[in-house]
Amino acid sequence: MDASSRIEAGLNMAFTRTHAPPAPPLLAAAMRHAVFPRGARVRPRLCLSVAAACGDDHPEVSDAAACALELLHCASLVHDDLPCFDDAAIRRGKPSVHAAYGAPLAVLAGDALIVLSFQLLAWSTLHVPARLGPLVLTIAQAVGMPNGIAAGQAWESEPKPDLAVYQRAKTGALFSAATIAGAAAAGADPQPWRALGELLGEAYQVADDLLDAVANPDECGKPVGQDAALNRPSAVRAYGINGALDLLESLAASAAASIPDCAGATPLRALIAQEAKRLVPKSLSRAAA
Amino acid sequence: MDASSRIEAGLNMAFTRTHAPPAPPLLAAAMRHAVFPRGARVRPRLCLSVAAACGDDHPEVSDAAACALELLHCASLVHDDLPCFDDAAIRRGKPSVHAAYGAPLAVLAGDALIVLSFQLLAWSTLHVPARLGPLVLTIAQAVGMPNGIAAGQAWESEPKPDLAVYQRAKTGALFSAATIAGAAAAGADPQPWRALGELLGEAYQVADDLLDAVANPDECGKPVGQDAALNRPSAVRAYGINGALDLLESLAASAAASIPDCAGATPLRALIAQEAKRLVPKSLSRAAA
Repeated sequence: MDASSRIEAGLNMAFTRTHAPPAPPLLAAAMRHAVFPRGARVRPRLCLSVAAACGDDHPEVSDAAACALELLHCASLVHDDLPCFDDAAIRRGKPSVHAAYGAPLAVLAGDALIVLSFQLLAWSTLHVPARLGPLVLTIAQAVGMPNGIAAGQAWESEPKPDLAVYQRAKTGALFSAATIAGAAAAGADPQPWRALGELLGEAYQVADDLLDAVANPDECGKPVGQDAALNRPSAVRAYGINGALDLLESLAASAAASIPDCAGATPLRALIAQEAKRLVPKSLSRAAA
Repeated sequence: MDASSRIEAGLNMAFTRTHAPPAPPLLAAAMRHAVFPRGARVRPRLCLSVAAACGDDHPEVSDAAACALELLHCASLVHDDLPCFDDAAIRRGKPSVHAAYGAPLAVLAGDALIVLSFQLLAWSTLHVPARLGPLVLTIAQAVGMPNGIAAGQAWESEPKPDLAVYQRAKTGALFSAATIAGAAAAGADPQPWRALGELLGEAYQVADDLLDAVANPDECGKPVGQDAALNRPSAVRAYGINGALDLLESLAASAAASIPDCAGATPLRALIAQEAKRLVPKSLSRAAA
């Protein structure tokens, strides 16, 4: 099975296991709504690519790690779209979870997706229990305190957020977790893979800032212009559009260069080149990109 | 150290580990606000009591399980108090988290507390990795789908909630997890301890319904009369006050009778008798209780 099929199958399996009776039907539907139809699935694909480069001796574990990352990413979007945060009515081109199901079920869907991600890790490691601890810690660190997604979102409530700390937590942490968890799921030393995740996370955040600044809502699948409207820190506001574009290119190049020497290095570099191209908003694509 | 001291020390240690820089200060404060000053700490005390009855050979693991349960309980209260749910301004006699820090930080505090609970489990089992999987699964089941706390809260959004399913999920699940996790943390077979948790969970829910129906806000530390005001299912609304009181007494007696034969049975029965007395709202205390 290719990576995309593994991810979709893993996510469907996760819901099959947790949405049986006596599951409340509306919460089950809200959770599915948050995760399907698919977004780019960037983080889980990155996780599986690193696991493959490291031998992927227990694919059920790397599948679980990949799906856990995606569930947590979706959970963060659901909560970030809530009326008390961005109040976004549209996500991935359709109504956001709170717009479709109301704020209470959106809060609960995020909560239940967070919990499900840890369940996935535990189910997958029943036969390799030594892998569970490092995976739980890696992934929890990426979404909790002091520098995971929740911490990142919380900087939006602080009077003087530090742009680098904010972006590293809100976006970078889950990318670092994707590469580290990919290696840990395959039983490899994760440390050589940290830089790749960090650099891709930074690149992705810069791309998101660019998209928010220049895209139209149709291209983006969500409202744009939010950073300026909500006075949020952003690479475009800090460096201008050309400065942000330069930064994005340089980060993608550093990411490709950071890949440790291993059997799977070539397909991984190809994936990164493809992502870097995809990340540049269409209206800004440079001839060289 | 006695159980209460172990719980408070464990919770403080959890925050010490996760609230170091670069933690955003307001989210750190909101998380502490959700957990201190202490409530009755019923679930973690129950967990430690069962662990003690099972030999408690790795106290660091039972401490983590107990604290994880309390963090998850507090997380559920923070989200349940949000304006989109109960809109409760008071909790444990002081401003609720969203009243003190705003709804965005209350959402994030709940999220980060959920994540922290799984981190605690992983940290504590570094030297006994085989215990982590069962603990993660037990505790995740108690808070996720299809029948944990999030599922329970979600029944409030369903047109026709089943009172028993709703209460078992919203309150019972974490009590069952407390006894099961206490046994699992000590490396014992958890199944004989399931009934105790289930019965105590039911008793606690009935007591909460009674408190909501008859207490004054000072006794309760939170707004009362919410079940009727919000048209929520409740044992008092279903059986009347005397019927609910009878049910509470019978559940507490069954709980005490369910305790498996073991060295720690006597102190555990004493704890349950003490809890059963504490649970009855003062204005309803019967001579026999």
